Amino acid sequence: MTIGSFYPPQRTLMGPGPSDIYPQVLQALSRPTVGHLDPLFIGMMDELKQLLQYAFQTQNPFTIAVSAPGSAGMEACFVNLVEPGEKVIVCRNGVFGDRMRENVERCGGEAVMVENAWGEPVDPQLVAQALEANPDAKIVAFVHAETSTGALSDAEAIAKLARQHDCLTIVDAVTSLGGVPLLVDEWQLDAVYSGSQKCLSCVPGLSPLTFSERAVAKIQQRQSKVQSWFLDQSLVLGYWSGEGKRSYHHTAPVNSLYALHEALVLLKNEGLESAWQRHRDAHRELRDGLEKLGIEFVVDEAYRLPQLNAVYIPEGVDDTQVRQTLLERYNLEIGAGLGALAGKAWRIGLMGYAARSENVALCLKALESTLK
Amino acid sequence: MTIGSFYPPQRTLMGPGPSDIYPQVLQALSRPTVGHLDPLFIGMMDELKQLLQYAFQTQNPFTIAVSAPGSAGMEACFVNLVEPGEKVIVCRNGVFGDRMRENVERCGGEAVMVENAWGEPVDPQLVAQALEANPDAKIVAFVHAETSTGALSDAEAIAKLARQHDCLTIVDAVTSLGGVPLLVDEWQLDAVYSGSQKCLSCVPGLSPLTFSERAVAKIQQRQSKVQSWFLDQSLVLGYWSGEGKRSYHHTAPVNSLYALHEALVLLKNEGLESAWQRHRDAHRELRDGLEKLGIEFVVDEAYRLPQLNAVYIPEGVDDTQVRQTLLERYNLEIGAGLGALAGKAWRIGLMGYAARSENVALCLKALESTLK
Repeated sequence: MTIGSFYPPQRTLMGPGPSDIYPQVLQALSRPTVGHLDPLFIGMMDELKQLLQYAFQTQNPFTIAVSAPGSAGMEACFVNLVEPGEKVIVCRNGVFGDRMRENVERCGGEAVMVENAWGEPVDPQLVAQALEANPDAKIVAFVHAETSTGALSDAEAIAKLARQHDCLTIVDAVTSLGGVPLLVDEWQLDAVYSGSQKCLSCVPGLSPLTFSERAVAKIQQRQSKVQSWFLDQSLVLGYWSGEGKRSYHHTAPVNSLYALHEALVLLKNEGLESAWQRHRDAHRELRDGLEKLGIEFVVDEAYRLPQLNAVYIPEGVDDTQVRQTLLERYNLEIGAGLGALAGKAWRIGLMGYAARSENVALCLKALESTLK
Repeated sequence: MTIGSFYPPQRTLMGPGPSDIYPQVLQALSRPTVGHLDPLFIGMMDELKQLLQYAFQTQNPFTIAVSAPGSAGMEACFVNLVEPGEKVIVCRNGVFGDRMRENVERCGGEAVMVENAWGEPVDPQLVAQALEANPDAKIVAFVHAETSTGALSDAEAIAKLARQHDCLTIVDAVTSLGGVPLLVDEWQLDAVYSGSQKCLSCVPGLSPLTFSERAVAKIQQRQSKVQSWFLDQSLVLGYWSGEGKRSYHHTAPVNSLYALHEALVLLKNEGLESAWQRHRDAHRELRDGLEKLGIEFVVDEAYRLPQLNAVYIPEGVDDTQVRQTLLERYNLEIGAGLGALAGKAWRIGLMGYAARSENVALCLKALESTLK
């Protein structure tokens, strides 16, 4: 059997991620590879750190990109911050809260679940009750923007409750970073991870991560070694540190980091507030058009993510066939439902570079024609 | 502070990796991103699996690329195959054997060390003794090609001993894959991981991995959950399986996988034996030239890796200054010594696309001029 080069088609990516990639990011990606200890590359990593601090709105010195996808960023938070036997309050309102529970348990921690319906945000009242009932809890973990449902939770309120009970917070900002306000310092969040392939419109494979001084202090006071060598952030810190000699930890994914640098330069040039506004504008255009088609949203408008629109599949419509037609005829990808919403909903992403009127227009017209 | 786009220089990469990247691989890298569940992408992953089977010379159905660098590939082997309390014989003849020990201990296993001098291969006699002294050992772990010293160990002989004592093998083939013979099936190796950025001349960030049926059986018989969610290969298997519905695990690093596919197509077209020969030829050219300059090798010719040449820094020469001149004047990167060889040796890589006469000529002339 002969296998030749792979030439992918040009798709319009309006699923839950990867999102449409900025052309400039793809250009940056294919620039010449340099050594991961090259002084010029180390300079780029220092810039990348500053750009990530801007995106996260934080001054945290520990702000890096994990050399692996968002799920590894999630795991980096749990393996570093949870010690065996520790109690963690985990809020679940979709798929990713459940993955957090898995993480806690695999670290030997005890997960106390706060349950919310799919499509609802995390209820701070329930978090408060869990904190009162579990005075020995050390951490509160929750998803800021649930990619499986499109619901936005009040990260500021949950973090405030956690602090009142002397708990750290682990926050999944995979889908929120760059798409909706995420103010790590103002809200005093402790460990926040994201993904490169959502509202940053970079290629998938990297996980931006920031730890507060409180989080770093907890890591430094650990009684046991972090169970993962690859994700042990006390080792990684020496690698990202701009000061003095860079210690070798692993070989950085050089070209992917070029791409993330470029995506963040684009974000910085646009400005966070303009990016948030662009996501809101695109969402409104999409919403108005979908409502005209009689399509209903899963999440109430009050806490709906502009960048991830979960909508119910109209009665009598064949889920798979519609998505296949969109893909094959229009080169347009929208997302299937996940978990409890599998087969019941579509997820239409307007993330990063995808949040543009031309994408909304294509999506609305293609859906209208396909649903006829 | 204003940060603009990053434009790296065109370096010639002759360190321990990343190696010079094939231009075709950089082109493939920047092709349009498609969704990670796109049927065309799934088709590409199936091809990638076959290409990896060729590179590893195996029929193992479990042959994939971990979505993270080689150190994560190493960890994937240990967290899946080692259960708490299990004894693992770890051969150490450089930096990476030591990292294996770290991995065993972080999995709750007990590492029995087989010590060999830096620059020497693993001595099968010592492995045999360790196996006899530890009849309860379950696994033998060793590095096929030590990147820190450039020594090649006899993987076939060590694996045979392991089998005689009913042990599985975990083999670090980060630097060997594509550069020297590595016959996974013929040698009956059980868990073998590599890196994309060495002799495959792909961008860094992925770790090719293959598990034998025996390794898969051990994973299936585990008493405890794998401590890493991200690296739990029983979950990842559903993701890479070509049969039926692909289950979502994490978002694949789509563009990096395009690049790996292309690098493997190039390897397949060249043919493994030709690639091995090209590495040997380039090594001989480099060796003859270095010997004329009076530079000595760390590793004896009998088990010297053609693709990774560790040489002693000549008496009275300033390590850092020479490497800096090579980089700044010639855009040429060679590697520093690591661990016990830091400050004492250089590591000159002839990996993948770097194993060419023009690279050897540049390196020899630039060294000659700089050392004058």
